[in-house]
Amino acid sequence: MRIILTGAGGFVGRHLARRLLAQGLDGRVVERLVLADLDPPELDDIRVTRVAGDLSDAGVRARLVADGADVLFHLAALPGGAAARDPALSRKVNLDGTLDLIEAAAAAHAGRVPPLRVVYTSTIAVLGHPMPALVDDATPLQPAMTYGTHKRMVELALDDYRRRGLVDPVAIRLSGILARPGGATGLKSAFMSDVFHALAAGRPYTCPVSPAAAIWAMSLDRCVDNLLHAATVDGALMPVGGAVTLPALRLAMGDLVTAIARRTGTDAGLVDYAPDAGLEAAFGAHPPLSTPAADAAGFRHDGTVDALVESALSTL
Amino acid sequence: MRIILTGAGGFVGRHLARRLLAQGLDGRVVERLVLADLDPPELDDIRVTRVAGDLSDAGVRARLVADGADVLFHLAALPGGAAARDPALSRKVNLDGTLDLIEAAAAAHAGRVPPLRVVYTSTIAVLGHPMPALVDDATPLQPAMTYGTHKRMVELALDDYRRRGLVDPVAIRLSGILARPGGATGLKSAFMSDVFHALAAGRPYTCPVSPAAAIWAMSLDRCVDNLLHAATVDGALMPVGGAVTLPALRLAMGDLVTAIARRTGTDAGLVDYAPDAGLEAAFGAHPPLSTPAADAAGFRHDGTVDALVESALSTL
Repeated sequence: MRIILTGAGGFVGRHLARRLLAQGLDGRVVERLVLADLDPPELDDIRVTRVAGDLSDAGVRARLVADGADVLFHLAALPGGAAARDPALSRKVNLDGTLDLIEAAAAAHAGRVPPLRVVYTSTIAVLGHPMPALVDDATPLQPAMTYGTHKRMVELALDDYRRRGLVDPVAIRLSGILARPGGATGLKSAFMSDVFHALAAGRPYTCPVSPAAAIWAMSLDRCVDNLLHAATVDGALMPVGGAVTLPALRLAMGDLVTAIARRTGTDAGLVDYAPDAGLEAAFGAHPPLSTPAADAAGFRHDGTVDALVESALSTL
Repeated sequence: MRIILTGAGGFVGRHLARRLLAQGLDGRVVERLVLADLDPPELDDIRVTRVAGDLSDAGVRARLVADGADVLFHLAALPGGAAARDPALSRKVNLDGTLDLIEAAAAAHAGRVPPLRVVYTSTIAVLGHPMPALVDDATPLQPAMTYGTHKRMVELALDDYRRRGLVDPVAIRLSGILARPGGATGLKSAFMSDVFHALAAGRPYTCPVSPAAAIWAMSLDRCVDNLLHAATVDGALMPVGGAVTLPALRLAMGDLVTAIARRTGTDAGLVDYAPDAGLEAAFGAHPPLSTPAADAAGFRHDGTVDALVESALSTL
């Protein structure tokens, strides 16, 4: 199996690359893995090819798709905060460059059957803000920021590409992935991950949301499980529109802290709470989430807070 | 008041241009009207400037927006059938070129208060196909063809431009406009208009949908009323998302024929019916339509089939 992975230098991309090489995809061995990013990781594996460069550069796109593939994982994106600061760059990367890349990959694949499976990482930001009292598959998609807007626009374009037979896309909307690397990542939601690093190291931590703050979360390993599933899931199991909101565990921040402390053998009292109203509203007010379409298509969350914590700690 | 109108050579654009010059906008005189199209109409009025060219050409866009405006009506588009035949051109015109034009107009307007009002003609094709048993403002937007996909993508982008303060957009989704000029326009929905021309001329007509076929329709004059309203409506009256499905009369084709015959003093028996299953499904199966958001914002349909027919005949 030949695979192209964009955003390979990112937190999720690196882990996905390692797992693809280690375990293959749905019982099939990965023969070739093309890692694309501004600075793709150097993995010591002869199956790996690196394509370094900006995907909004047509030459970079051409090199990336030149040798064809069975699956394209398109994870590369300008993140939400950066997109808000530079909407023109978001349009270039998250919209125009993304459409150009997928059209180039489809053209390189033209004439082959089946069409190229494209796994696209969308986001719960397509749902908008504030959220209704319950989010389910009927919740209107009304993004409230540039990042979510461009992600939703691409979801629509992918569905059109599918109808036109250009590619065979599966778009999955991700919640918070735990635990990201420690340190200043620039993400406002970094607190969800920072608390893992603090407790694992026995350090005190001041949490910027309340213990009652409700978040949607998924472990990194479970996120990659879902990406691998998206690469092979029968398209007929996907709902109209071709995009699903992935299941995620809805957790109270205090329960997450308790579970991390239990698993790491540290004291939950190391964490105190100094809620910031803005962060509480943006990341701590997630309503109950129902995802029947994704569930029916075989996507899964971590099951329990303890399972999520164990999984997240294993990739810390 | 200074106005830019793209798609000025089209059926709706020509009529909008004439009415803007004749009656102004909300009590204000039109001082300057820039008509843009591949071949804009020659109107004998010193207030009119013509900009001929392709809006996907940056030079044409720059000329169009150079002198600023109070309102931009963006009607130019590659129509649905042509978009389906040439999706790449649809992306260029209906998506990329449209976003580029609006960004160029916003840049030319930058620093002025209020931001530029942009009236964007979207389409009921954003609703998708087949439609549910009732269409209302909660109906999911799941376009089923390239044209509707690109129109929905632009609606989303406009809402983002609004949040970013670039422009002040109002997007309105149009149904069938009656009556278009006779002759082969290439539109599959041409039958709705052709029956007007036939009966007005006392000619027999074979209708390709059944008398029970249910269509959504609006007269040309009422469509322009709604465009003029969109140029001045208080943005606070628009719903979240900034786009509304316009009210439209839901008519049985047989009732439309009867009303045209009555008004023109001809015999409804001139029309016979030879339903085509494809046309019946695509254009003759429109469910009841409820448009509370547009109603609340002051948009209106023609009221009755007789009023619609009288209005449509007046612009035939």
